[in-house]
Amino acid sequence: MNIHLQNGTIKLENPPYFIAGGAVGGQKESEGPLCDFLDEFSSDGRFDRDTWEKAESEMQKHALYFALNRANLDKVDFIFSGDLLNQCTASAFAHRESNTSYVGLYGACSTFVEGLCLSSVFLSSQSAEHTAISASSHFCSAERQYRYPLNYGGQRPPTAQWTVTGAGAVIMGRERGIARATHVNFGKIVDMGIKDANNMGAAMAPAAFETINAIFKDTNTKPNDYDLIVTGDLGFLGKKLLCDLFKKEENIEIPNIIDCGEEIFSKSAQDVHSGASGAGCSACVFSRFILEQIKDGRWKKVLFAGTGALLSPLSTQQGESIPCICHGIVIEV
Amino acid sequence: MNIHLQNGTIKLENPPYFIAGGAVGGQKESEGPLCDFLDEFSSDGRFDRDTWEKAESEMQKHALYFALNRANLDKVDFIFSGDLLNQCTASAFAHRESNTSYVGLYGACSTFVEGLCLSSVFLSSQSAEHTAISASSHFCSAERQYRYPLNYGGQRPPTAQWTVTGAGAVIMGRERGIARATHVNFGKIVDMGIKDANNMGAAMAPAAFETINAIFKDTNTKPNDYDLIVTGDLGFLGKKLLCDLFKKEENIEIPNIIDCGEEIFSKSAQDVHSGASGAGCSACVFSRFILEQIKDGRWKKVLFAGTGALLSPLSTQQGESIPCICHGIVIEV
Repeated sequence: MNIHLQNGTIKLENPPYFIAGGAVGGQKESEGPLCDFLDEFSSDGRFDRDTWEKAESEMQKHALYFALNRANLDKVDFIFSGDLLNQCTASAFAHRESNTSYVGLYGACSTFVEGLCLSSVFLSSQSAEHTAISASSHFCSAERQYRYPLNYGGQRPPTAQWTVTGAGAVIMGRERGIARATHVNFGKIVDMGIKDANNMGAAMAPAAFETINAIFKDTNTKPNDYDLIVTGDLGFLGKKLLCDLFKKEENIEIPNIIDCGEEIFSKSAQDVHSGASGAGCSACVFSRFILEQIKDGRWKKVLFAGTGALLSPLSTQQGESIPCICHGIVIEV
Repeated sequence: MNIHLQNGTIKLENPPYFIAGGAVGGQKESEGPLCDFLDEFSSDGRFDRDTWEKAESEMQKHALYFALNRANLDKVDFIFSGDLLNQCTASAFAHRESNTSYVGLYGACSTFVEGLCLSSVFLSSQSAEHTAISASSHFCSAERQYRYPLNYGGQRPPTAQWTVTGAGAVIMGRERGIARATHVNFGKIVDMGIKDANNMGAAMAPAAFETINAIFKDTNTKPNDYDLIVTGDLGFLGKKLLCDLFKKEENIEIPNIIDCGEEIFSKSAQDVHSGASGAGCSACVFSRFILEQIKDGRWKKVLFAGTGALLSPLSTQQGESIPCICHGIVIEV
């Protein structure tokens, strides 16, 4: 049986395995440093569909296809999935022909890690043999839903992050695989009163601090006990704030941290201001880049923390601050 | 350990308990046949807040407060929650001060049962001691988001369902309670090509058929093995279609079925066309009415199936059909 630890971390009795992943993206993603870790890209971001929203569904479907192929599986028992579109339609339409039990999630950019954590609980309790977890975002569908019509050409402030056009999917299972999920932590909502929807990194950093710190305490570990700590997606500013918080509150340095929002685009060659974001960002970066580095022995113990800003355009218009969340998972070879 | 059965049902090894529930609603709900099963109602639907969306958050917070009180608990380990608003903000804002691990869901009107099913897997695997599940909807926030501004006074066709202004919350636990969850089934997405967003009952009935039939097969049961089968929310039309489907496909009659969308308003005295709907409908009806009837010994074995239409206004505008889902849970004293 699993054990629910003092600060909310669940210790998994039968740690499930990560088997394989798939990732697809758009043109900009294919020009970034992780281009070799995309199975497919669409130069016009449309994936042969007539709207951005339909393209986003298509991406998630393709990512799952590549993940299943790489795992040598036809089918899984459950799909855990979500995205940023209103009513999470990218995910529902992606998986409507899958004939597979479907668990719809909303955790904004934390959705992918939320799915990994839920899937881990399902597998460790033998509620499933194999599961899939997928998430997506699309720059164009997100811009017009959250901000301005694309043609308007709105100016982005330096603190803004660029929504990734991409989807990632991972297959997990009970019996075999690359590495195992040993602990999961579903975060608490943290709202520090920040109201600037163009500065999500600052809003999300305290949530990341809470969850990562809870895992450190519950597992009696420190940053150096991990080969890598990955956040997704705080961006440049948010990652710096997270490190500052750990220094100030716990006197802990985190030298071994990377953020998915920093990795997917080149800071010098691709102008994305404060980095990348979007539910597809950490899904894309983890599903192949991180997972294959683990497989190749580069990292043996990884803490993966997915952050999400649980606002909506309407909540911002109504003067609300930004509630944030971070879910975390510990992965060990 | 749990067992994953052939048609997707999970048999829970340590069936968790339903402990207590809370429900709140608006004026119309307080005038309906289930008025005695509301802990609180707001005559102007605002719950002392200045927008409908903030009122919806407030409802979910209050429902959880009443549920916790009735369960004699201060706190739970996890909250599973969701709603119909874009980016599920009613739920995130409701629980941002709860200081509790939060699992954000999107399953449209199936969200509440999705949460019950997830919570059951968590409790049965000892990943938690106590959990809360909550969901909400608000007629006014839903109308303006999905359809027309309220002042426009749009005409509703006879197949339309009326979105409930209400929230329900249930507390579950490992050790004691009213009744136990023995089986859960996370449904597959079913899309029969229906495109009329004013006829959700017809779109959702095939999904309900799939999931309820899967539970019948996996547990080797028939309608008469249950004291009650509850769907939420097919409405009058959808429930009839579901019964027709069972008759036609399986030659099974279901005399003992009720639908939450039929129960909450009076068909004769309150004009709601094809019944009620909304994530808050089944949450509200189950959390007190159903649960307290079970407690009082009226029903000993109940199959509760929550249906959801996973569309968005945008997917309808883009000519898409309506993907639907149904999650089911078996409850036994």
